[in-house]
Amino acid sequence: MQHREALTAYTGAFVDELAKVQIKHVVVSPGSRSTPLAYMLMEHPDIQVHMNIDERSAGFFALGLAKASNSPVGLLCTSGTAAANYYPAVVEAYNSRVPLLVMTADRPHELRDVGAPQAIDQIHLYGKHAKWFVEMALPENTEEGLNYARTICARAAAAAVSAPAGPVHLNFPFREPLIPFLNEPKWFGETMGPSIQVEQSIPILSENAFKHYADRISRAEKGLIVCGGMDSAEFNAAVVSLSEKIGFPILADPLSQLRSSSFVSETVIDTYDTFLRYEEVKENLKPDLILRFGSMPVSKALAIFIKQQKESDVLVIDGGAGWREPTGTASAYVYCNEAVFCREITDRSTPSPSFEWMDIWKKVRDYTKQGLLRIRDIKELDEGKLFALLNDLMPDGSGLFVGNSMPVRDLDSFFHSSSKKVRMFCNRGANGIDGVVSTALGVSTVVDNTVLLIGDLSFFHDMNGLLAAKLLKLNITIVVVNNDGGGIFSFLPQSNDERHYETLFGTPHGLNYQHAANLYGAEYFVPQNWDEFTDAFTSSFNNRGLKVIEVKTARESNVQKHRDLWKDVSREITSLLKEQS
Amino acid sequence: MQHREALTAYTGAFVDELAKVQIKHVVVSPGSRSTPLAYMLMEHPDIQVHMNIDERSAGFFALGLAKASNSPVGLLCTSGTAAANYYPAVVEAYNSRVPLLVMTADRPHELRDVGAPQAIDQIHLYGKHAKWFVEMALPENTEEGLNYARTICARAAAAAVSAPAGPVHLNFPFREPLIPFLNEPKWFGETMGPSIQVEQSIPILSENAFKHYADRISRAEKGLIVCGGMDSAEFNAAVVSLSEKIGFPILADPLSQLRSSSFVSETVIDTYDTFLRYEEVKENLKPDLILRFGSMPVSKALAIFIKQQKESDVLVIDGGAGWREPTGTASAYVYCNEAVFCREITDRSTPSPSFEWMDIWKKVRDYTKQGLLRIRDIKELDEGKLFALLNDLMPDGSGLFVGNSMPVRDLDSFFHSSSKKVRMFCNRGANGIDGVVSTALGVSTVVDNTVLLIGDLSFFHDMNGLLAAKLLKLNITIVVVNNDGGGIFSFLPQSNDERHYETLFGTPHGLNYQHAANLYGAEYFVPQNWDEFTDAFTSSFNNRGLKVIEVKTARESNVQKHRDLWKDVSREITSLLKEQS
Repeated sequence: MQHREALTAYTGAFVDELAKVQIKHVVVSPGSRSTPLAYMLMEHPDIQVHMNIDERSAGFFALGLAKASNSPVGLLCTSGTAAANYYPAVVEAYNSRVPLLVMTADRPHELRDVGAPQAIDQIHLYGKHAKWFVEMALPENTEEGLNYARTICARAAAAAVSAPAGPVHLNFPFREPLIPFLNEPKWFGETMGPSIQVEQSIPILSENAFKHYADRISRAEKGLIVCGGMDSAEFNAAVVSLSEKIGFPILADPLSQLRSSSFVSETVIDTYDTFLRYEEVKENLKPDLILRFGSMPVSKALAIFIKQQKESDVLVIDGGAGWREPTGTASAYVYCNEAVFCREITDRSTPSPSFEWMDIWKKVRDYTKQGLLRIRDIKELDEGKLFALLNDLMPDGSGLFVGNSMPVRDLDSFFHSSSKKVRMFCNRGANGIDGVVSTALGVSTVVDNTVLLIGDLSFFHDMNGLLAAKLLKLNITIVVVNNDGGGIFSFLPQSNDERHYETLFGTPHGLNYQHAANLYGAEYFVPQNWDEFTDAFTSSFNNRGLKVIEVKTARESNVQKHRDLWKDVSREITSLLKEQS
Repeated sequence: MQHREALTAYTGAFVDELAKVQIKHVVVSPGSRSTPLAYMLMEHPDIQVHMNIDERSAGFFALGLAKASNSPVGLLCTSGTAAANYYPAVVEAYNSRVPLLVMTADRPHELRDVGAPQAIDQIHLYGKHAKWFVEMALPENTEEGLNYARTICARAAAAAVSAPAGPVHLNFPFREPLIPFLNEPKWFGETMGPSIQVEQSIPILSENAFKHYADRISRAEKGLIVCGGMDSAEFNAAVVSLSEKIGFPILADPLSQLRSSSFVSETVIDTYDTFLRYEEVKENLKPDLILRFGSMPVSKALAIFIKQQKESDVLVIDGGAGWREPTGTASAYVYCNEAVFCREITDRSTPSPSFEWMDIWKKVRDYTKQGLLRIRDIKELDEGKLFALLNDLMPDGSGLFVGNSMPVRDLDSFFHSSSKKVRMFCNRGANGIDGVVSTALGVSTVVDNTVLLIGDLSFFHDMNGLLAAKLLKLNITIVVVNNDGGGIFSFLPQSNDERHYETLFGTPHGLNYQHAANLYGAEYFVPQNWDEFTDAFTSSFNNRGLKVIEVKTARESNVQKHRDLWKDVSREITSLLKEQS
């Protein structure tokens, strides 16, 4: 009785604080040891529980929810390998700075490391990939105990969101019996007193430092802004103002949210992944200063371009105080809130006297775009053309989640800027092909009309994630580009090896995804041509539910077509630049 | 050129040593960064590569291979979250003492923690769940470099198998280009010189200690031997001899391999999971000494029984020097090779003067068995009866892998001893429902006629594992007991709660596994009655390949039937024991 009262009060206080610090979504996987918290989460009027049976998928589902809602999401599972299944999502959250509050139930101390069932060492289970770890005290119905539970909850939520955001891990030992008293509203709401507030700081620079960087930037004649993955409307507005005032083009990664939003500006350059492949083009585009914001962009051509700018001043502005610069060219890391930095520099700069530099970039962009449009002439189903068409077909206000490997690269090449608002998502913390289906489903609970565009291997890897779509009645359109194996490897030198290539990299699986669609109750289409695709895609938004559109392509011809197109476009731009000079 | 030569020589030397230390099976997942090792593994004539796309499944596949072959198995994947997906299998291997050699490819040092793609912190990625971790040096074609690669390989293999066995982790940084020279037999075989041998020790006791324990055991009048999970024919022969000489019954867990083997002895007691549920029965069966071998048995009734024997001398014999005794009743831990211990004690003991104590146990066992046989009268499809039938239907020399939760418990209750040789498997390190399909498939590559008996949630959790069955043309019969959700929770007090039970625990998914079977090219049967089941099951051994038999049962009636049967049997045994006394 006393035990159950302690269990009820302690988990009740914790869960109530969770709601008070605005963690209102918790993804729960079934299990016995986690019963006390699971019950309290179900009981709390302000918390929504999302059930997800496979913990690996559950972890990514929470990640997607957190990304789309820009706020921390809770996770709860039972003891044992269940908790180990969260690892890939925790690692991705850590590397992509997404706040998660991971709660794992555990055996009490006397049942640890003594061969008890479902007991593994959960202390620091996620190693350095959790920002904060707490081994919780056993439940106690004392003033200290309840205050402790509330405090840890508030601290954990604060730790998860403080820059750089990331996952935190709380491990809860529970002793049997595991069932709290239900109908116990006294642990919820006002009776528990106010929540413990943590006011987060905004990292800014000193007056002198702002002045220094404003001067340094103003001296540049050929400045470039590079925006990688980031999701802040405030920053987007600020960086566009800066760019327009000082005449620096913005090379905008698709995940910068600058390509498809109300902020879309003429100074935003896309298509650089194509034109920066060619030395003759790059010769004419050498910057003397680069301002980098956000995570490293997807484009390998851009990364190589930056790496080559040895004489350029490269400033990496990072409010998360990281070191995200794999090209090794940064001359300074500036730990400042990115939006504040842009506004301060804008205020302190004089408008650019000439827009010649900007105009070259715009011209190259426009010509490249023109050239790339030819992908629309391809008659057969093709991976690049798919993204060109999505430019037209995505509904305004929708979300586009793309898989790693080819989809995100094709997005970069072929999905161009427009003022239609489409939020872009991709798991770029660790760039895994795992967990993508579930992350997109997590996004779909927040962003209506979410589309997932994914390769066949990545779709396979997290097919289990689809069960949530079925059970939680989610609404998503999934376009599976099926080239029967690892398409991206066809772009690597490995593909010239005849002996082991198909076994080790091509990995054809021969799966017919119609069966997967049947298993999870999805509407399923295999368009045979572009008209059928357009039909299936546009009408998929008319019915709610899980819709799978499988686009079958060929790995080899895909590589050849991409390479041919890039070559043609580069030739045209080179001669354009020659004419100019 | 120099770089590729170093890459070739270094990975060649490593892989050749791998073959020399008898790690001849490596489970590989596709990826780019792991190319150097993947190529060398493919090239080596003595190594068999098993491709597995989903790294989580790959990890468990390797675990199954290692379990069934009683020798270490290699794993190889690319950098990033791929490696994090091994975590559940690594944790299970650590807790169940199965040797694995995990090789993860990594970015070179200059690309770490700088936002490079697919770069995560892989140093000590598996924390305390890897027995040994090495961050490998970059490839070098020097005498020191090659000797280093070979040495670490030999050490890693030795560390994995030394008692207690477990997983080791080697992290390989590789710089581009990643392609070694092929057709380079000079790195393989005799030219590389002999392998570095590690002669493992066998833990034994001093003469005095053996004498002490022989005396202590001889003084017991009512001794019991409890054998948990273990897989050693040598130990089985030794423990049976001991039991027969000193008159201690052996309570044999199904995973002790003592129930279904050529060692099956009249002194082996099964069915205790039924009769030890009742206080009146237990009253008559109090031991004064317990010898425990192997991991903790599956039976909760047995665990409670041992916990109640506060006045008994409880010796836990463990060649792996662990602390596997969650009941907290051990009076001594004896760190000695289990087979040696049994033989030494047998040699030093006098034969038991009376077999009265043994006879009571045998009688109770026989009556219980008789009672439990009534499960065969059940007309409708039923989970317990399934295991009773498997007693008859499993082919001699086959393997039976059972899932966690209900299957392993039903196995314990209803699959009784016989001299038919059936090797039993279950993932009892952490008792997870994850990875079971893949572990069984790993077993099936070694044990012909492997049968997997698994619940629907566990089957769902690792459905991805089935792709290996399709691609590698494996031979397995999978019996899915489908009660549409978490059957085991129906046995818990949580099941009395009306409000959240189905959401949190029952978790009905409504999946029709026919579609999963179609997806993976399985033969599929849904028997409607026992005759159809028998037909489908027995004829499944006639065709090689993946065969799925779905047995649909009801969660609630299952619990009721089990409880009724146990109650009836206990009543009968109680009156039997009354008659005796």
